[in-house]
Amino acid sequence: MLDYALLDALAAVVRHGSFDRAASELNVTPSAVSQRVKLLEERVGSVLVKRGQPCVATTSGALLCRHTERVQLLEAELTGRVPALPGGLVEAWPTLRVAVNDDSVGTWFIDAVAPFCAERQMLLDLVIDDQDHTAQRIRDGSVQGAVTTQAEPVQGCRSTRLGRMRYLAVCSPAFLARHFADGVTRDSLRRTPCVDFNPKDQLQKRFMRRITRAEVDPPLHWIPHVAGFLRACVTGLGWGMCPERMIASHLASGELVDMAPGKHIDVDLYWQSWRLSIGWLDDFSAVLRMRAAEFLD
Amino acid sequence: MLDYALLDALAAVVRHGSFDRAASELNVTPSAVSQRVKLLEERVGSVLVKRGQPCVATTSGALLCRHTERVQLLEAELTGRVPALPGGLVEAWPTLRVAVNDDSVGTWFIDAVAPFCAERQMLLDLVIDDQDHTAQRIRDGSVQGAVTTQAEPVQGCRSTRLGRMRYLAVCSPAFLARHFADGVTRDSLRRTPCVDFNPKDQLQKRFMRRITRAEVDPPLHWIPHVAGFLRACVTGLGWGMCPERMIASHLASGELVDMAPGKHIDVDLYWQSWRLSIGWLDDFSAVLRMRAAEFLD
Repeated sequence: MLDYALLDALAAVVRHGSFDRAASELNVTPSAVSQRVKLLEERVGSVLVKRGQPCVATTSGALLCRHTERVQLLEAELTGRVPALPGGLVEAWPTLRVAVNDDSVGTWFIDAVAPFCAERQMLLDLVIDDQDHTAQRIRDGSVQGAVTTQAEPVQGCRSTRLGRMRYLAVCSPAFLARHFADGVTRDSLRRTPCVDFNPKDQLQKRFMRRITRAEVDPPLHWIPHVAGFLRACVTGLGWGMCPERMIASHLASGELVDMAPGKHIDVDLYWQSWRLSIGWLDDFSAVLRMRAAEFLD
Repeated sequence: MLDYALLDALAAVVRHGSFDRAASELNVTPSAVSQRVKLLEERVGSVLVKRGQPCVATTSGALLCRHTERVQLLEAELTGRVPALPGGLVEAWPTLRVAVNDDSVGTWFIDAVAPFCAERQMLLDLVIDDQDHTAQRIRDGSVQGAVTTQAEPVQGCRSTRLGRMRYLAVCSPAFLARHFADGVTRDSLRRTPCVDFNPKDQLQKRFMRRITRAEVDPPLHWIPHVAGFLRACVTGLGWGMCPERMIASHLASGELVDMAPGKHIDVDLYWQSWRLSIGWLDDFSAVLRMRAAEFLD
């Protein structure tokens, strides 16, 4: 079999992005970690970690990390069933690494999974990315599950629909009066500052295409932060697409207004996870699907 | 003088991370952008952009981008004063690229600067990083200002104190009863799941060192998301350090409790910005200092 002391060291370096932090997790010296990774690289015959800040896995390294994490999950499950196994062999708390989009973490995800994780003693390691890009994270093996807009199963994964997030184009009432007094048109959109989350965020562009049937290139604020994005809309920096559930109270209080009633954008979210049958992962998936139905439309 | 059509193309590629998006901003074809960058690289005699997803500036490329952005800011200021200048020459809305820590964006930053930016028609491009790492962003020239814990001025920058953010160790009352019934001690901390923002976040470690005078290595959840971090504490996933101002209502309602009254951690925040005298940047700095005093302790 493979040498799991070496694989464990490799996985820790990639997880923490640093030999020092890996060493502190494994309770050994950084030079011991370095030796283990080097030895593994000699045996495999290729570089497994690009040294840097942070240290990143090469393609081969990522494959070995993915395998190691699967074995760790299986071991963790085994401990649950065979409590007499020496504790030193296995981690007491298994970690579930999951890619989730910002707006899901900002609205429903934590509330949906926290009770289950607390009860089953699972640790969450969230990788945050755009909903159109989380599927890439499961494809490259860096996470065990992903909340994504991609319906089609990634190879080796199951896909199930979680529900729908509805986005509304909103701004403050004063902003609407100042910039859209003559309506939300191609001309007013072109001149009016818009808030974008980051270059991956296509929601504002999609809304403008839908309204104007053209490409519009307005002045852009970049606010890659869920709470900051919402405050930017409330304080009149610009307009932006916000999840309906996140802004219900702002709409009710009149702090935000729907710029184009009926012109919402719906985003369907799916849960994709490894098909490898790991009890915990299957249970987590079942809970996530059930709880998501309460929070999503 | 330098060829600013070429520099503009380089800066756009680095800003958007892609030749296609740069082309769409500049209203030219991607191949035109590519030719301009190549021509500039030939003249300078070194590679300026590492092609990839995203495209990233090399060290020389970053220096040229920094220079280009400074010139763009000066031009934008000039247009404000010489309105007759042809609009095609200058951007109508200057963009201020600023590095800010997550918790500041999640609590006070947007509210502090939005009215000024809206009135002066400035666009914000926020780079979010840990408060101990934002100074690096101004040092490498990728931002024009930074909210940082570093008091000492970065070379070529001014530094002024903004105020203090106070962090409390908090968790849900049920979590406290379950895990800390016998007190917040080295032993209970070692066994109890803790929420960390990301590997750069040292606040939980600092708190544990302060309480136990030792290195404690508890089970860790990783939740790199301000709202998600807070929900993880409220829903009982773990305990974590939250800004006092962000959780005032949760403490008042009893959703969260202070685990160790009096054992807060204070973080002093500073504003560092280019010493180059650009009217807008100076005005922004003055407004930020004044408004921060209202929001910070």
